[in-house]
Amino acid sequence: MVKGHIERAFAYLESGSVLLVTTNDGYRSNVMTISWQMVMDFTPRIAITTGAWNESYETLLRTEECCLCIPTFEMLDTVVGIGTTHGSECNKFDHFNLKTRKGSKVKAPVITNCLAAIECKLEDFIEQHGIFVFKGVQLWENEKKQEKRVIHANGDGTFFADGEFRNLRKKMRQLVPEGSERF
Amino acid sequence: MVKGHIERAFAYLESGSVLLVTTNDGYRSNVMTISWQMVMDFTPRIAITTGAWNESYETLLRTEECCLCIPTFEMLDTVVGIGTTHGSECNKFDHFNLKTRKGSKVKAPVITNCLAAIECKLEDFIEQHGIFVFKGVQLWENEKKQEKRVIHANGDGTFFADGEFRNLRKKMRQLVPEGSERF
Repeated sequence: MVKGHIERAFAYLESGSVLLVTTNDGYRSNVMTISWQMVMDFTPRIAITTGAWNESYETLLRTEECCLCIPTFEMLDTVVGIGTTHGSECNKFDHFNLKTRKGSKVKAPVITNCLAAIECKLEDFIEQHGIFVFKGVQLWENEKKQEKRVIHANGDGTFFADGEFRNLRKKMRQLVPEGSERF
Repeated sequence: MVKGHIERAFAYLESGSVLLVTTNDGYRSNVMTISWQMVMDFTPRIAITTGAWNESYETLLRTEECCLCIPTFEMLDTVVGIGTTHGSECNKFDHFNLKTRKGSKVKAPVITNCLAAIECKLEDFIEQHGIFVFKGVQLWENEKKQEKRVIHANGDGTFFADGEFRNLRKKMRQLVPEGSERF
């Protein structure tokens, strides 16, 4: 993993990629799978929705930080395994053979198996709706990763990888921030 | 288009599909393209983020309703065209040859070229973050549509269609609501 420009971070999220959200409560790290996520601006601010049923919820509120890691399609069984396992049952990082490195600005670990990871600080919590508003502060990119297709959850237990590609950058010049190109 | 079970509506959104959001202000209809969207629960509640720079913003606030229409990948040029054109310049429905039918519970039109459409009522507006929280109240499904691949915007002017498919419903039984199967 190498550090990348934070201006490009939203481009790993906007397509609706499934995320692995890591936290560290000061004693141990945890990871959850989430597909309820939304880009809010290009800086980037990112929203996720979760609730108190989730082990990471209290840690997110208390530490006010996390790392949003973007897994790729060949990791789908791992991603679903993480989403259907409780951290109290096992150390998910060991169990699922996740490699990590320290974050540079947060204590939550960066999963280096992933395509990219975004260290985030909590900017706001909208309790009524369980919405966490994060600001991305450091992008990590996996320059060695061959598989670049991210995971899209349909929510019904089925998934798609990124498929056919089109570049319409010329038509959208007015809407695309400079320096954001991933492709 | 035929009416479908609202329990399946979130499964058209959760993968991060680009949306065409229609509104009707009592005099005329409008449509915008958005990819900043997030499923919040299975009922479904859905969040979108937009701001006052958008023509539809005032109408969304005043009418408290919209229709979230899900276009498919062969409609990508239309979708980008809608996203880069102002409704004041032309009637977007005529200009982009969008076919519509009346909504059953909202005045915003259902775009029948799309794969599906979800009539929505505004439940809450979080002004500080420009987040509209909608509740889906009626699902429409296009039973005649051959192209079923939705559009994923990377945000940098490039796009992917749905690609390789996997069904992991058995592993995820505990997390998937009954009646939500799209695939």
